[in-house]
Amino acid sequence: MAERIIVFDTTLRDGEQSPGASMNKAEKLRLARQLEKLKVDVIEAGFPVASQGDFEAVALIAKEVRGLTVTALSRTEKTDIDRAWEAVKEGANPRLHIFIATSDLHLKYKLKKSRKEVLEIINKSVSYASRYTSNIEFSAEDGSRTDPNFLVQAVRAAVKAGATTINIPDTVGYALPEELGERIRFVREQVEADDRVVWSVHCHNDLGLAVANSLSAIQNGARQVEVTINGIGERAGNTSLEELVMALHTRKDLMPFTTGIETKQIYHTSRLVSRITGLVVPANKAVVGANAFAHESGIHQDGVLKKRTTYEIMTPKDVGLDQSVLVLGKHSGRHAFQDRLKELGYVLNPEDLKKVFERFKELADKKKEVVNEDIEALIADEILMIPDTYKLVYISVISGNMAVPTATVQIEINGEIIQKAGFGVGPIDATFNTINKIIKTCTKVCNLVSFSVNAITGGTDAQGQVTVRIQQGSKVILGKGSDSDIITASAKAYLNALNRLDYLKKNPIKSWS
Amino acid sequence: MAERIIVFDTTLRDGEQSPGASMNKAEKLRLARQLEKLKVDVIEAGFPVASQGDFEAVALIAKEVRGLTVTALSRTEKTDIDRAWEAVKEGANPRLHIFIATSDLHLKYKLKKSRKEVLEIINKSVSYASRYTSNIEFSAEDGSRTDPNFLVQAVRAAVKAGATTINIPDTVGYALPEELGERIRFVREQVEADDRVVWSVHCHNDLGLAVANSLSAIQNGARQVEVTINGIGERAGNTSLEELVMALHTRKDLMPFTTGIETKQIYHTSRLVSRITGLVVPANKAVVGANAFAHESGIHQDGVLKKRTTYEIMTPKDVGLDQSVLVLGKHSGRHAFQDRLKELGYVLNPEDLKKVFERFKELADKKKEVVNEDIEALIADEILMIPDTYKLVYISVISGNMAVPTATVQIEINGEIIQKAGFGVGPIDATFNTINKIIKTCTKVCNLVSFSVNAITGGTDAQGQVTVRIQQGSKVILGKGSDSDIITASAKAYLNALNRLDYLKKNPIKSWS
Repeated sequence: MAERIIVFDTTLRDGEQSPGASMNKAEKLRLARQLEKLKVDVIEAGFPVASQGDFEAVALIAKEVRGLTVTALSRTEKTDIDRAWEAVKEGANPRLHIFIATSDLHLKYKLKKSRKEVLEIINKSVSYASRYTSNIEFSAEDGSRTDPNFLVQAVRAAVKAGATTINIPDTVGYALPEELGERIRFVREQVEADDRVVWSVHCHNDLGLAVANSLSAIQNGARQVEVTINGIGERAGNTSLEELVMALHTRKDLMPFTTGIETKQIYHTSRLVSRITGLVVPANKAVVGANAFAHESGIHQDGVLKKRTTYEIMTPKDVGLDQSVLVLGKHSGRHAFQDRLKELGYVLNPEDLKKVFERFKELADKKKEVVNEDIEALIADEILMIPDTYKLVYISVISGNMAVPTATVQIEINGEIIQKAGFGVGPIDATFNTINKIIKTCTKVCNLVSFSVNAITGGTDAQGQVTVRIQQGSKVILGKGSDSDIITASAKAYLNALNRLDYLKKNPIKSWS
Repeated sequence: MAERIIVFDTTLRDGEQSPGASMNKAEKLRLARQLEKLKVDVIEAGFPVASQGDFEAVALIAKEVRGLTVTALSRTEKTDIDRAWEAVKEGANPRLHIFIATSDLHLKYKLKKSRKEVLEIINKSVSYASRYTSNIEFSAEDGSRTDPNFLVQAVRAAVKAGATTINIPDTVGYALPEELGERIRFVREQVEADDRVVWSVHCHNDLGLAVANSLSAIQNGARQVEVTINGIGERAGNTSLEELVMALHTRKDLMPFTTGIETKQIYHTSRLVSRITGLVVPANKAVVGANAFAHESGIHQDGVLKKRTTYEIMTPKDVGLDQSVLVLGKHSGRHAFQDRLKELGYVLNPEDLKKVFERFKELADKKKEVVNEDIEALIADEILMIPDTYKLVYISVISGNMAVPTATVQIEINGEIIQKAGFGVGPIDATFNTINKIIKTCTKVCNLVSFSVNAITGGTDAQGQVTVRIQQGSKVILGKGSDSDIITASAKAYLNALNRLDYLKKNPIKSWS
């Protein structure tokens, strides 16, 4: 039977050490609740002695999140251990996690202590902790660069003093898979404590090897892995939960291990961590990146359309995503393009299809990625040749700290010029409100889905680019405008979208509803 | 002696297949020139039959970039091979790269061909290609999921027909390190062509194992690795060049292999690819991410200050970066904080230091990351208690498509209200010009370094947040402002910065210059 691996999530502790990723108490609690849904076994909620905020967050999580083990990190000092215990003690199954460095490099330059002193410290601190609980994890910091024989001594001291989980961290992301696996096996065999302790591994990704190192450790006897969501953490980060779990899941044939993870919660958890920490998930991140299930080349798209498994080893649904994406770009073939048109509700005659496909290829040669709205804009402009029903004649906006932002707009509709004035909380809001007054279309039948001003960086005289998306029924229509005046650019973008909407309502294409 | 590994960069071909990463001809040439500086051995410049743009880019690169091998991808069709050769033939050392899938899954669903047919196709296409050149690479697509015995047959056919490089791709990122290593070894041993061919591997990162798989292949006889800068590519991307190269470099002790890569060009190349493709390098990306050499926790910072190697296994200089970064955040200790103050030119008395450090810890508990300008603002506000010399009394701005953007601004300076009007190319430009007219400080002695409006996404009534940075001498001063009116927010931010500048000029701190 497949052996169970304990998933120890340290997004809230090591993950939070990603520069820029600090989270506040409320954010940490929210994430801890999501980790409970994801069904991790252990949450390392923080390092209570580091700050008052950290202490409070750990205490709150221990009290509120009951379905798993909550642990807190602690140095070997009594005050650290007291503080950590104070924070976790209300937990359903609290654990103390004590660490000290064991490599000669760290002993000499950082701790300035002898091996003998370190062994004594381990003995004392773990013994002290065991007055509080028998659920004690001990980590030998920089374990992958520690003399293996001294590592054995350190671990023996920890086990003797009462540690029940022994963690061998690759603190600096230096190990190679085979090397780390052998080390875990060596220490396990030397310490001879297999029935009493759970062996754990904690890897960093400095050489891109965190997942491989963790898997190798598991294959050599580790039964706990320390991971973070999205692989965030100090420097290049930690082993990413999603990659490790999906590797075990996908390659059950060679690795007979299971985890308790609810894989369908992976995608949602990844997005939550990204939103809270502000750390963007790169498009090409394995498992959870925007492109992880996106196929760009014509050959791959063709393959996936014929049989998904030709280019997909796991399904997006496994991780809680609805579907994979065939991204249209210059490498896309006619097959995928026609497929997309059909999805969008366009059925073109062969001649028009040829024309649009050529224009699409030209566009794709210039532009990074062709999205659905681009295709609709392309069909609108190139094939349907949409006339501008609404033309911006005049716009003037007043704003300031004493003025009520006011817009005066003239729009020409079928040769007639209509003029209105309107207000808003800011100048752009005033402009859109006034346009809505003139053109009744939008207020009644559609929603403004999104409005974005491209971040302007550089001089104040840079061109402002505005994109709006409005929605009618299930259709989303794109509008773009640019002008050195950001307010005028916004007005242009909004009218651009309204013109498309108007045309499509008057000239319904097959299956447009 | 360390054996030499051939680095085959496919950023321009597989990398370009990252959804959203399409590059135009000029961008491709620029990148190819940088890859030459980085000293990769082979560039796969594109897939000429895919589009006219691709063809032209490959031809241009082959002609212009002479210090390495330029290759182009091709299916097994004669027209593909002709087109690929047409594109690369002017190269200094052109190579043809022909591929066909060999796994039963691909044969059945995608190619709809029998194994026998595929063997014939391999023989025919490689033989046809060898009329053009003897520098032929053959790839057995989905090689990691191909029946090993059929893989041997396919490779034998390719070698017999004239292929000189044999590539075994893990097309879908499915392999485990040991498994892929064994496969490479098995095929090599069965084919018995070691003196005639170079063995190559091409891995994808779907399970986070691309680097480990490539290293395992090398340890089992592969002498060419196919990689991309930043690991971009289809789905989760390819093996990243920087991780693979730095792993070999850092772990020479266990892996006796070298590459020709000029590691000091790595960082620059990574940034170039990011700028060209628009694909952001995540902060926690190994080797080239913003945090790869950043240390956040107090313990790590303390260690690095004492001895760099305690927490760094390679130096930032190795990859072309100037220095590692100690990021100040809630985990930072007093030591690192004081160090930073000194760097910034502040020497505070113990009492003030205590006060600032406490405020800093409070700020760090709330804020993601504390940057230098935050610290200066904190010292200014909390310790120096800067009064507002310039107060915004009134602002009114008119803009529109017919109006010359005009701002009227009143600012109170020492109890006196000064009022001016001014113009600009847009409303924000007009506002800043007018403020400059009133306050002469900035136009003479300082530069506007950056101006950024946070991308507004959501409703048009969202709060606008504006950040400006102005520079005097070597000092950069930050200003922030927010308001539901984006123009007013800009004015507030600019005045905020000017107030700080004014104070610091009147009250020079030690070493302020």
